[in-house]
Amino acid sequence: MKETVYTLTDKIDNDLACTCLSEQERAEIVSELKPLLSKDAIVLAQINPTSGDVRGNALKAFEWIKWAQKLEVNAIVFPEMYLIGYPIGDFIDRFPLVVEENIEWLEALAKKTDDKTKVIIGFVEFNKSKKGKKYYNSIAVLTGGKIERVIRKSLLPNYAEFNDYRHFEPAPVDSLNRITNIGDDKAGIIVCEDGWNDFDFFDKNLYSVDPVEVVVNEQHPDFLLNCSSSITRAKKEQLKHNMLGFAAKKHATPIVYVNQVGSNECVSFEGASRVYDKDGKLVAMAKSYSEQFFIVSPTMGGKIYPLPNGLEKTLNSQKAFTLDHEPDLERTYLTIIQSIRDYFKKTGFKRAVLGLSGGLDSTVSAVLLADALGAENVFGISMPSKITSVESKNDARELAENLGINFTEVSIKDMFDSTRSKFDEVFDSIDAQWDCRYKECFTNDNIQARSRALILWGVANEFQSCLPIATSDKSELYMGYATINGDMSGGFAPLADVSKTKLFALARWMNKNRAIKNAIPEAIIAKRPGAELAINPKTGKPLLAEEALMPYEFLDEVIWRVENLQQTIGDMMQAEFLHEKHLVQEGTPLSKEQKMEWLKKFFRRMSTSLYKWTIMPPSPIVDARSINKAEYRHPVIASKINYNKTTFEEKLQELSK
Amino acid sequence: MKETVYTLTDKIDNDLACTCLSEQERAEIVSELKPLLSKDAIVLAQINPTSGDVRGNALKAFEWIKWAQKLEVNAIVFPEMYLIGYPIGDFIDRFPLVVEENIEWLEALAKKTDDKTKVIIGFVEFNKSKKGKKYYNSIAVLTGGKIERVIRKSLLPNYAEFNDYRHFEPAPVDSLNRITNIGDDKAGIIVCEDGWNDFDFFDKNLYSVDPVEVVVNEQHPDFLLNCSSSITRAKKEQLKHNMLGFAAKKHATPIVYVNQVGSNECVSFEGASRVYDKDGKLVAMAKSYSEQFFIVSPTMGGKIYPLPNGLEKTLNSQKAFTLDHEPDLERTYLTIIQSIRDYFKKTGFKRAVLGLSGGLDSTVSAVLLADALGAENVFGISMPSKITSVESKNDARELAENLGINFTEVSIKDMFDSTRSKFDEVFDSIDAQWDCRYKECFTNDNIQARSRALILWGVANEFQSCLPIATSDKSELYMGYATINGDMSGGFAPLADVSKTKLFALARWMNKNRAIKNAIPEAIIAKRPGAELAINPKTGKPLLAEEALMPYEFLDEVIWRVENLQQTIGDMMQAEFLHEKHLVQEGTPLSKEQKMEWLKKFFRRMSTSLYKWTIMPPSPIVDARSINKAEYRHPVIASKINYNKTTFEEKLQELSK
Repeated sequence: MKETVYTLTDKIDNDLACTCLSEQERAEIVSELKPLLSKDAIVLAQINPTSGDVRGNALKAFEWIKWAQKLEVNAIVFPEMYLIGYPIGDFIDRFPLVVEENIEWLEALAKKTDDKTKVIIGFVEFNKSKKGKKYYNSIAVLTGGKIERVIRKSLLPNYAEFNDYRHFEPAPVDSLNRITNIGDDKAGIIVCEDGWNDFDFFDKNLYSVDPVEVVVNEQHPDFLLNCSSSITRAKKEQLKHNMLGFAAKKHATPIVYVNQVGSNECVSFEGASRVYDKDGKLVAMAKSYSEQFFIVSPTMGGKIYPLPNGLEKTLNSQKAFTLDHEPDLERTYLTIIQSIRDYFKKTGFKRAVLGLSGGLDSTVSAVLLADALGAENVFGISMPSKITSVESKNDARELAENLGINFTEVSIKDMFDSTRSKFDEVFDSIDAQWDCRYKECFTNDNIQARSRALILWGVANEFQSCLPIATSDKSELYMGYATINGDMSGGFAPLADVSKTKLFALARWMNKNRAIKNAIPEAIIAKRPGAELAINPKTGKPLLAEEALMPYEFLDEVIWRVENLQQTIGDMMQAEFLHEKHLVQEGTPLSKEQKMEWLKKFFRRMSTSLYKWTIMPPSPIVDARSINKAEYRHPVIASKINYNKTTFEEKLQELSK
Repeated sequence: MKETVYTLTDKIDNDLACTCLSEQERAEIVSELKPLLSKDAIVLAQINPTSGDVRGNALKAFEWIKWAQKLEVNAIVFPEMYLIGYPIGDFIDRFPLVVEENIEWLEALAKKTDDKTKVIIGFVEFNKSKKGKKYYNSIAVLTGGKIERVIRKSLLPNYAEFNDYRHFEPAPVDSLNRITNIGDDKAGIIVCEDGWNDFDFFDKNLYSVDPVEVVVNEQHPDFLLNCSSSITRAKKEQLKHNMLGFAAKKHATPIVYVNQVGSNECVSFEGASRVYDKDGKLVAMAKSYSEQFFIVSPTMGGKIYPLPNGLEKTLNSQKAFTLDHEPDLERTYLTIIQSIRDYFKKTGFKRAVLGLSGGLDSTVSAVLLADALGAENVFGISMPSKITSVESKNDARELAENLGINFTEVSIKDMFDSTRSKFDEVFDSIDAQWDCRYKECFTNDNIQARSRALILWGVANEFQSCLPIATSDKSELYMGYATINGDMSGGFAPLADVSKTKLFALARWMNKNRAIKNAIPEAIIAKRPGAELAINPKTGKPLLAEEALMPYEFLDEVIWRVENLQQTIGDMMQAEFLHEKHLVQEGTPLSKEQKMEWLKKFFRRMSTSLYKWTIMPPSPIVDARSINKAEYRHPVIASKINYNKTTFEEKLQELSK
């Protein structure tokens, strides 16, 4: 019997969810499959909603519901918040109309349900009480033309990218109401975070109640059904897998978990909906990063699709900083591709234009854009200045040819000259009034970066559905090594949460794993990064980024320690960095003074980069932690934090002065 | 005796808080005042902290504490979160070091306390339990060299600009622990929002407990002491006044309220610390918008400084949209001035540079900058293109002369020409590959706006501590009528929460109320707004904003209805707009079709402007509601919201297709 279930789900995969099939073709699939289904079969609707597009989401759900009804399965289960989309920012606060609409669409869908196939679906509900927040984050069970019951979320995440408690009232755990019959089974419904507070599994718990425990102990369901919108982050998958398996085993109750797929602006959902049996063993799992009409048997399991690298491995493999990014590259690639594709699609854009400098950032961006949007929809423009080397120009051209994207080259020399000449005129006037001109500054560097962005935005003005791309990476954003209205300006920033050392690894990974091998010229990966905006007077060559900043290997470990270990200068002086180990191996150990200097430089530059973070375009969250403003907000004026702890005695002394 | 108290506070005002006084001068004030103080005198430290600058805040507090000790008052009371600053964004999550530091500074300050003068001060505390959030938002009572007790906040606001619940665990109301003796009185301590949940005062309550009621009923304090960081918003002051007075009277207990002053990035605190007697009557109130070492008697009151217009009047006066912005202009002016001044000071900037177009936005910005930073620290640059009229150039120059700010003029014609010529080259290349060129577009308009921003950012690169200013206003931001990397780009955007009709009123108000009258040339206020970036083919003159958008009077009312009444198209079609009344008076009533067209245009343009909101520079929140991203976040991809409700029947029909 288990074999049958496997065959079934293997066969239909996401075909029923695929709009490319005709009614006729789908009907054939249905008639073939129907007699083979196990009697407890249900559909996990691993689906990609658009936030705010209630009508679109409802109509799409209905398409899926119709096929579930034709298959006569016991239920089709949608993710948390499906009807309104997730995340929502704050729009339900300002536009309660959207909530009214999602309720009416829910009621309209309810009218279309029959007695056989229950529809279980996330929506936003008004809180009609005189106390508490305006709304509930709820799941509705629809059957026989009616709303059978509504389950309200109890545990409301409000950290990092989650803001549930801004809008939703936490509901007491009413275990009886969480029970609904699905076929011959009694199912207990859990809403996402409600399943993340096991007191035995976690060392520290955010909430004082575990709804899973309450529901199991009071109602003894045959299985638990967790409707989620759970975001992909580095290191999160292994945690999720361990936790779901642990809870299933602990309560000797199978857990069926359905998750949203797709990206909504900054956050990405990987799907990977699944079933754990009562022994905590994974017995069914949907594909990642694609919609799937996934049929499972809550008691017998289903097909197990393998997870991409990164979803499998990253949790336990990264307790220390490493340059071996390999385990997380496939997930990183898929997350960014999905983010680009969905951002363009959901905002109505189709084409991308970007500057190709022959450097790593623009190169990796171009590959990802080509894979996400199709090479024909990408335009790369090489925009050399007098500092740009012949090699860089050639590398850019070769890359474009290899990728098959559109390409052109245009010199920015004339723009630079006319701008510079106006600057001289303005600066002389100002100099006559203000006695504060810098002796050395980045004015000329920035004219170049800004002239290039001016061209890219010009293209976006002139050609339909075309978005310019910001190519800044995470390492450079921490350092403020990015030009306002220059390379950090664009409609979307695909690499903003990818550090430089990981970008190198990603470039090599793509060369190896894409259909067309080695599209990225080796020269681009081999050369040391530099913006080619200024000449280093010491070398007479274009200034390298590591000369202006610090070694990327060191920098990326600082970032990793800040984000993952919350370390500051004192902690890091105690720790041994990978870069220090490498220098010891090379016989040139790092001095404490140099290390301290780099650490201070890191926090000094970070403090003056906070403004740049606030004006970064939308970008995908990829890492375990990020500086994406959907997750982390640091007031610009909070720039005087002392990242180097003083002692209590020093403080007392300061007060005694 | 009451007279004495008045005289005292009147005399010292904020002199003791003023760093311009010598130790000698302050000592003289102290010796003169001390014998006159009532025996229950306490100091309300209405003070301006910098978020994250724990050391700076602690040292400043200590200066104030020393003077309180010399005066031998019973207590000095600081605002909520004072030591760490407020707001904090998320930095305490990533940098627990800051919290460690604020605890050590608290302990160091405690060591410096004596037995006479208690220090009551807000800080962030670790939650050491294994359950719940990482921190508490707490108030410490320091006395005799020790921490006497710690009071934890129970009600955690998490809406609009507040994010308490992201980081803090709500504490149960422990009424006994909230009691401390101050002189001969028993005081009950309330932390900001803890005082905002009276079940009789509010129709709808966010929380299920009223800590004020619990403390009063269980402990019968002689007075309540509310330590706050309460933000100024249009219409909020009257609510606060009514609520505090109501609670004091209801519980027959005086309420002493101390509030932060100053601006931290987007949010502004007006101060206005105060005392209500047991009959609910206001008996003491500090100045607004300035630091104040404010001595009061909790039982007898103190001096009452008048509030600025706007803090007094706005609540009840704006139940309907009005063009009479007069009641809120003084508050608006003071809020923006304080925001500019504090943003520059706290981020280390000193000078501002802005483009002067001769239009309203740049004009009002220039006046506010001159008043906030000093005219000598402001540089206005007129940057005409071929579309700029002679009148605009002259108006800009005249304004600069009237204000006494620095001024220069530079033509952007050459920059435009060299950019346009490069664009032609690039566009031809792209046109050969992509068949999607617009017939009409904003390319040329935007070259002008972006060339100007390029110059302003160049000045910021070349001259020390100089920030370019973005001049976009709220009406235009809703409409996306602002150029990316152009007029909406800058280090700070003073007008982003001021609508166009209010800007006109503010300009006239400043002409009347500033020391130098009529600095703004009447011609600037009289002319109809237009960006002077393009020619209207119908008139042959520069395109006016209202021709491109809709009448500002109508637009601003739509914004007002969206923000304050959460209305959408259906509601607004039912309502009668002020603009409609005016048109009836003029004998040219507005057709339903035209109204519907404007409303649809509003939401269509707003939906495509969401991206621009995400990359807006920091700007002060001024209105009752705003689109500042510190308060309101709307995902860019949530652009398909249907703002025109459909009926249930229409939905059912769509499902039946």
